[in-house]
Amino acid sequence: MKVGLLGLGTVGRGVWQLISRENEVLSNRLGCDLQIKKILVNDKSKERGLAIAPELLTTEAKDILEDEEIKIVVEVIGGTGVARELVKQALSRGKSVVTANKELMASFGQEVLEAADLGGADLLFEASVAAGIPIIKPLRESLVGNRIARVMGIINGTTNFILSKMDAGQNYEDALVKAQELGYAERDPASDVEGKDAAAKIAILASIAFNSRVTAADVYTEGIGSISSVDIMYARELGYAVKLLAVAKVDADEFGQPGASGAGGAPVSLEARVHPAMIPLDHPLASVKDAYNAIFVEGDAVGNLMFFGQGAGSLPTASAIVADVFQAATNILGSVTGQSACTCFNSWPVKSIEKIETSFYLLLEAADRPGVLASIAKVFGDHDVSISNVIQKQTEAGIAEVVFMTNKVMEGNLRSALTIIESLDVVDKVKNVMRVEVGQDG
Amino acid sequence: MKVGLLGLGTVGRGVWQLISRENEVLSNRLGCDLQIKKILVNDKSKERGLAIAPELLTTEAKDILEDEEIKIVVEVIGGTGVARELVKQALSRGKSVVTANKELMASFGQEVLEAADLGGADLLFEASVAAGIPIIKPLRESLVGNRIARVMGIINGTTNFILSKMDAGQNYEDALVKAQELGYAERDPASDVEGKDAAAKIAILASIAFNSRVTAADVYTEGIGSISSVDIMYARELGYAVKLLAVAKVDADEFGQPGASGAGGAPVSLEARVHPAMIPLDHPLASVKDAYNAIFVEGDAVGNLMFFGQGAGSLPTASAIVADVFQAATNILGSVTGQSACTCFNSWPVKSIEKIETSFYLLLEAADRPGVLASIAKVFGDHDVSISNVIQKQTEAGIAEVVFMTNKVMEGNLRSALTIIESLDVVDKVKNVMRVEVGQDG
Repeated sequence: MKVGLLGLGTVGRGVWQLISRENEVLSNRLGCDLQIKKILVNDKSKERGLAIAPELLTTEAKDILEDEEIKIVVEVIGGTGVARELVKQALSRGKSVVTANKELMASFGQEVLEAADLGGADLLFEASVAAGIPIIKPLRESLVGNRIARVMGIINGTTNFILSKMDAGQNYEDALVKAQELGYAERDPASDVEGKDAAAKIAILASIAFNSRVTAADVYTEGIGSISSVDIMYARELGYAVKLLAVAKVDADEFGQPGASGAGGAPVSLEARVHPAMIPLDHPLASVKDAYNAIFVEGDAVGNLMFFGQGAGSLPTASAIVADVFQAATNILGSVTGQSACTCFNSWPVKSIEKIETSFYLLLEAADRPGVLASIAKVFGDHDVSISNVIQKQTEAGIAEVVFMTNKVMEGNLRSALTIIESLDVVDKVKNVMRVEVGQDG
Repeated sequence: MKVGLLGLGTVGRGVWQLISRENEVLSNRLGCDLQIKKILVNDKSKERGLAIAPELLTTEAKDILEDEEIKIVVEVIGGTGVARELVKQALSRGKSVVTANKELMASFGQEVLEAADLGGADLLFEASVAAGIPIIKPLRESLVGNRIARVMGIINGTTNFILSKMDAGQNYEDALVKAQELGYAERDPASDVEGKDAAAKIAILASIAFNSRVTAADVYTEGIGSISSVDIMYARELGYAVKLLAVAKVDADEFGQPGASGAGGAPVSLEARVHPAMIPLDHPLASVKDAYNAIFVEGDAVGNLMFFGQGAGSLPTASAIVADVFQAATNILGSVTGQSACTCFNSWPVKSIEKIETSFYLLLEAADRPGVLASIAKVFGDHDVSISNVIQKQTEAGIAEVVFMTNKVMEGNLRSALTIIESLDVVDKVKNVMRVEVGQDG
């Protein structure tokens, strides 16, 4: 069983190391020898610190695509340019493809899965979300008897590291520098802190959990740039942790029962969003620290599940890729390839953020004198925003910081209220607004 | 695709509900209708609160075993009596079997897996450990590129619930009653609190993680009966939580690198044990509260993983069974059954508890006068037991409670030291001894 490797960067080297090292075990279990035959690189002469025979390296994709002996292609180039083309070409030639490419799957998932279907080949992408944490296979296979109500994850290690350090007292800038020093940042750090990396991943998870196509573009996305140490301090005081959460959810209100697939013909819609959020300190996701990732899944039969681990890195990502290569090889040997095609048999629309209901945390700077709270509260009342908690603190003479926690409210209503509140004479500014994500019954 | 159900207790009813309710989705995805055709019960007239057509029920196993149309048999009878025979008969007739039976898999796993091999059928048992938490499939398939160093779990919900309540201030008896009221106790509560339930489960996990047969009888087992609120209080003071831990581990010392499969021909041995243990409060397992289960897995490529969720209950267990039924059906349709056979290609011995090295917590009652600590410490020194931490508190006039935390020590040495310490005049009694389980590097 010959494998072609497209790319030999950080992840590609991990794949090479793992397949080389575990060759004996993998081949024994598979009942046939598993070998990397060819590796596509940009520069054959580059020093990589690996003992790879020079004749394995090529700069020509056709050396892999046109090699009849290569049955499995591993794509670790990344991005949606050349990788997209090579993946499609490999699939159209009936080669099974294993990829770690979240951008590809999140933006062109349908296209490449259709190519797999046409080619009668497998397209496996466990490594595209949360590296070696098994999540795609469990969602697709282990939870097949469940209706999933919500998938909620910390799926970007960089931002979780930064927020953890801020929680421990560092400021944003120092925490970011530290994250960069430790190599936690992905190739493009902006993609992490702006939430785009997490958005691609939750699009993939949502598509699988709800069997309904969600692309990266469908995901409402906010990064962590607005979060200050003050927000984190207030969150803790109120019993919450601040996390960059990726949330995918079936709208429960419209059909009464979370996760039901539109029983009674009622319209079903999805939420798909990435943003900083407050979650209760006793929620399992609140304890996920540093660069760790975790995905919390709510199924109607299984209850609450959480999958925790390292969500990035050479060997953790290679761990998922090797498992997929093993699966692809098993399927080829059993002549059962081409069954991993798209399962998006639903087409549920994704709600706009204005239509989504959550609770909110609001931090305002206001005049510190009688009647201010009343005038703000009146605006909330006029917009159906009900308040569950208020903290007011004097910061300097005449100025107060006021924190409001709302009950569940439709985001559009809250935004309308805030527009008016911002224009009030007594309100200096709205310093931050953050969604609050609670348990199933909250 | 016809399914036969052996047993219609709590779990059997969950399986019936889930397969009935999800019939359309499962059949669509499978490309063929999935139906329960026959159900073995003891008493056909019993009121079960389910709308099951009477002709589906039978009291004769042969109605399922001899029905050529039934390709998949689900065994939810439990125990190692009739269940063992029926599973073997079904497999020998080439029917794939899905079971939730931990006792069967932990004590007769080899026997039934060999029967599956001979019958060319699948034997799937995800539900036998931690109900609906996907763990067996991830270990077997998703981590195939890893060498596992340790699997460590909270895999008995009853005892975790009791310990959580004790941590919150209740005493053991009240916590146990509460657990019984909430229905968290398994059929035989003794099996939970004495650690036997967890021992069966860790035997199964160890066999899969290390590809080496571990049976329930190989697992050193202690229950939570010895744990008092005082231990839990001291643990917290020292920065630890008390959990009933199930631990399976490759002995790292003998070959230098955790998880290496005996490179260089060095002998490899395993640890398999269930006992109350202290784990650092910042370890992910420490936050696992109430009846929740979690399994922490350390792989050399993937790093640390944790799988968290409900470890018992009708629908959570049925969730795992339905996934296995779906897998078995997929394999039958693809003509690739019989590939799930035993993967125990290693035969690594399980170490006796005396040979195992951990740190220890010791709680002693001693005379509260000068020189006592010195005489105890001398005995430890004589037996190569090094102490990392001591707390001494006066409880009443002339009596002191002394807590020792040791560094890593071979258990046999510690036991020898304790025998002598117990006989010292100044020592009233050794009130408790508990192992301390730390991170990979601890």
